[in-house]
Amino acid sequence: MKHISMTAAEIAGIVKGKIIGDAGKTVTAVAGLKEAGPDQLSFAGNRKVMELFRASRAGIVLIPADLANTPKPESTLIVCASVDLAFATITALYAEEPPAFERGVHPSAVVSPEAKLGNNVSINANAVIERGAEIGDNTVIGAGCYIGHDVKIGADSLLYPNVTVMYRCIIGRKAIIHPGVVIGADGFGFFPGPHGLVKVPQTGYVQIDDDVEIGANTTIDRARFGRTWIKSNVKIDNQVMVAHNVTIGESSILVAQCGVAGSSELGRGVILAAQSGVNGHITLGDGVQVAGTSGVLRSVPPGKAVLGTPAETQRDFMARYSLPSRFEKLSKKVAELQAKLDALEAAAENGSK
Amino acid sequence: MKHISMTAAEIAGIVKGKIIGDAGKTVTAVAGLKEAGPDQLSFAGNRKVMELFRASRAGIVLIPADLANTPKPESTLIVCASVDLAFATITALYAEEPPAFERGVHPSAVVSPEAKLGNNVSINANAVIERGAEIGDNTVIGAGCYIGHDVKIGADSLLYPNVTVMYRCIIGRKAIIHPGVVIGADGFGFFPGPHGLVKVPQTGYVQIDDDVEIGANTTIDRARFGRTWIKSNVKIDNQVMVAHNVTIGESSILVAQCGVAGSSELGRGVILAAQSGVNGHITLGDGVQVAGTSGVLRSVPPGKAVLGTPAETQRDFMARYSLPSRFEKLSKKVAELQAKLDALEAAAENGSK
Amino acid sequence: MKHISMTAAEIAGIVKGKIIGDAGKTVTAVAGLKEAGPDQLSFAGNRKVMELFRASRAGIVLIPADLANTPKPESTLIVCASVDLAFATITALYAEEPPAFERGVHPSAVVSPEAKLGNNVSINANAVIERGAEIGDNTVIGAGCYIGHDVKIGADSLLYPNVTVMYRCIIGRKAIIHPGVVIGADGFGFFPGPHGLVKVPQTGYVQIDDDVEIGANTTIDRARFGRTWIKSNVKIDNQVMVAHNVTIGESSILVAQCGVAGSSELGRGVILAAQSGVNGHITLGDGVQVAGTSGVLRSVPPGKAVLGTPAETQRDFMARYSLPSRFEKLSKKVAELQAKLDALEAAAENGSK
Repeated sequence: MKHISMTAAEIAGIVKGKIIGDAGKTVTAVAGLKEAGPDQLSFAGNRKVMELFRASRAGIVLIPADLANTPKPESTLIVCASVDLAFATITALYAEEPPAFERGVHPSAVVSPEAKLGNNVSINANAVIERGAEIGDNTVIGAGCYIGHDVKIGADSLLYPNVTVMYRCIIGRKAIIHPGVVIGADGFGFFPGPHGLVKVPQTGYVQIDDDVEIGANTTIDRARFGRTWIKSNVKIDNQVMVAHNVTIGESSILVAQCGVAGSSELGRGVILAAQSGVNGHITLGDGVQVAGTSGVLRSVPPGKAVLGTPAETQRDFMARYSLPSRFEKLSKKVAELQAKLDALEAAAENGSK
Repeated sequence: MKHISMTAAEIAGIVKGKIIGDAGKTVTAVAGLKEAGPDQLSFAGNRKVMELFRASRAGIVLIPADLANTPKPESTLIVCASVDLAFATITALYAEEPPAFERGVHPSAVVSPEAKLGNNVSINANAVIERGAEIGDNTVIGAGCYIGHDVKIGADSLLYPNVTVMYRCIIGRKAIIHPGVVIGADGFGFFPGPHGLVKVPQTGYVQIDDDVEIGANTTIDRARFGRTWIKSNVKIDNQVMVAHNVTIGESSILVAQCGVAGSSELGRGVILAAQSGVNGHITLGDGVQVAGTSGVLRSVPPGKAVLGTPAETQRDFMARYSLPSRFEKLSKKVAELQAKLDALEAAAENGSK
Repeated sequence: MKHISMTAAEIAGIVKGKIIGDAGKTVTAVAGLKEAGPDQLSFAGNRKVMELFRASRAGIVLIPADLANTPKPESTLIVCASVDLAFATITALYAEEPPAFERGVHPSAVVSPEAKLGNNVSINANAVIERGAEIGDNTVIGAGCYIGHDVKIGADSLLYPNVTVMYRCIIGRKAIIHPGVVIGADGFGFFPGPHGLVKVPQTGYVQIDDDVEIGANTTIDRARFGRTWIKSNVKIDNQVMVAHNVTIGESSILVAQCGVAGSSELGRGVILAAQSGVNGHITLGDGVQVAGTSGVLRSVPPGKAVLGTPAETQRDFMARYSLPSRFEKLSKKVAELQAKLDALEAAAENGSK
């Protein structure tokens, strides 16, 4: 981290925030609420971290208006419209730049003479670029990457080391692709033949639109025919599996270790939390939210949140989840009824004697 | 896709199908039911896609006999014994060939002089082949692959780029191994020692028989001793984890992101659906089917289908799954009993006055 | 496996065990209980394998004292304090050595002149080491590995082929890192902006302390700021996901395909079984055990074992799990009450006539 001294007044100016406390308070670094000391800046983005916030020794804390009324003499608060944006902005100022990749083609890279490189590209050590591939201006191909035949990658993209992009796949502009990602392996399809399982040819490709980020060791399979399609601004975490012929709508978020089975279609702004799974041949409408570890078996209409396996609404899930305690109550009630009934029977028998 | 004009009559001849509709109908491409237009061929393999089928504008649709009685004037139907096989056959005709890998050893590959290469192999850029390895005739070793010491790979196999095969592992003929696969990393075993966890040596290997396909970023660990064994015709999807000393029976199917823990044994034709898990040291009989996301804790006899975590039969799962609605009914009944009982009590009290 | 002839007496001497049976019994190999024949040594570590043990034809079996009273004339038993340690010791004697990696820098490796290599290192074919990186004495960097700018790796570490370590990450001494591992990819963080999702800069690093082992294709993300921290003696299996700013305490065990979300903190000796998941921003105390496939939503105090999703105690889980059978019993009881009540009502009506 760079060592930069900034006052609360300077920071508030940058993030367009309002100071509560000492405008002259100085910090020299950023840190989490727990670790931050009196000369560090931190942030409290939501109600969940209020306990950490109250205990924090941070010199300055970025905070939204609705949480800013907690009295906290040891910290200067800066009230921000978007704490996330503000903290990201200040963090970026303190951050050391990531190392730059050298422009040009490293002598150890193996680039087909029939590949087409844009201006100002960076093709790193031991990268392999096959015949017919096209790499856009300013794009970085990391060390050890494999770029297959006829692959097209747009301008201003960044492929970290050891990424594999198979033949004929298409990647847009400003992509960020982390190490170990595999784009365009065959989709998974077999049918029973007389001598065992027979492979269904996977003849399509993968299309990734602009501004997509893909996390380490994620895999996106080529289509059986046509395309597997990741639309613009989609953000995918590590170890995610996207099967053949899937479509992921704009600005959707796929968190770590989730998976989408073949031919399913996700709308815009869908969120799949970690380790969730989406069945094949179904549709998730715009804005659908799937909770972590859930398994979605059926299509979900736009805007709905689902959880559990098979995934259901929060209401249905809670009805199921609260069963043990409701069962105990019902058992007690039944025991009481039985006692009353026994008493009545006894009384009736006495009466009839 | 190649642009080829074919009539329904020609297609029916190739797939040995029966035409319902216009035998002269012409198509020039294949597509899914949803995307296909009047000059495209599609397929409706099962009852689940009937809604898409009825709405489809496809010129020709391949369909099984039991679904072919839906009237559909806008499409010519071709009734096939196996729609999967027929569509795969026609798709293959329209598909552009995948790019061929050049034969010979790329000058950038690093091949030990003590490795043994078969005839007509293709060893691609920056591949590394260690001492004692043997590569069968016609086999392709993709760019950036690592083939460890004394590894044996059979004839006619295809390793895509960036595959890692560690020392002494054995791969059969006609294997297809997708990018990022790791075969023969150490199994996971430790025991508590006086100064922390102590590694159990993993001294065995992995044996993969003929006709096996392995999806991107899947890992298959070497045995503690002896072998981890993938039998012939097994098909494994992406991001699957097979632990040490596991045996997978012939023609089994392991779908994406599933895992099998150490020393478990799967019979022939077992299907593990996506994200399922199999506990260690258990046995799944021939033909066992495990539903997606299920966790199998105990051995399962041949032919059974199980689901849920812990995995149980469909019947037991449904008994559990339907509890909330059955609970509501029982609660109502108890409330009714209570009302009756209260009435009886009141009557009894009145009577005794 | 090496062919070495050893007597029970010799083996008992090495593992400091007590012989039950024939001290002159000779074995020439090690194997599992199921496969072992009369000239092989096996082990029965716990009660679960007693069935296999009784059926085993193994010539010698290592066994703990509490299981050694089963009469078994066909096998000589050696009673050991730690069967795991004893079997690992004998296995190591029979194991062929893994192949040695040649010392020095392979001519195809691309090592920056501004990188610093220790004594006796082994930098293998096509490895790439960037400017400012430091590699400790005796450390092996496998073929095709990528070691980023300013990365520090301690002495006596072993990176298998095709590992990726991104800039500024730190790895301690005696690390074992399996193929396909990615250390230091960006953490996953975005916030909604006016034109779609905006990336939160991930400016921190990953710190891995001494004696850590990391399984194939596992990913450990760099911190948003500060560090993601894997403490000493932690053992991580394949395809595990550790998100940004997570801390994993000493000697914890993370089994295959589990994941830990951002900023969570695990104490010492925590065990996450296979396919489990830990929510972000929570704490798992020392010695917490999470069962396979469980999803932990809330912090767990030290020493507790939890299971299910949302994870709960064994007691709560069993209350939930046993609901179907308890429900059946309660339903019967309600039916009986109803019958009695109907009888009482009928009697009351008759009486009032």
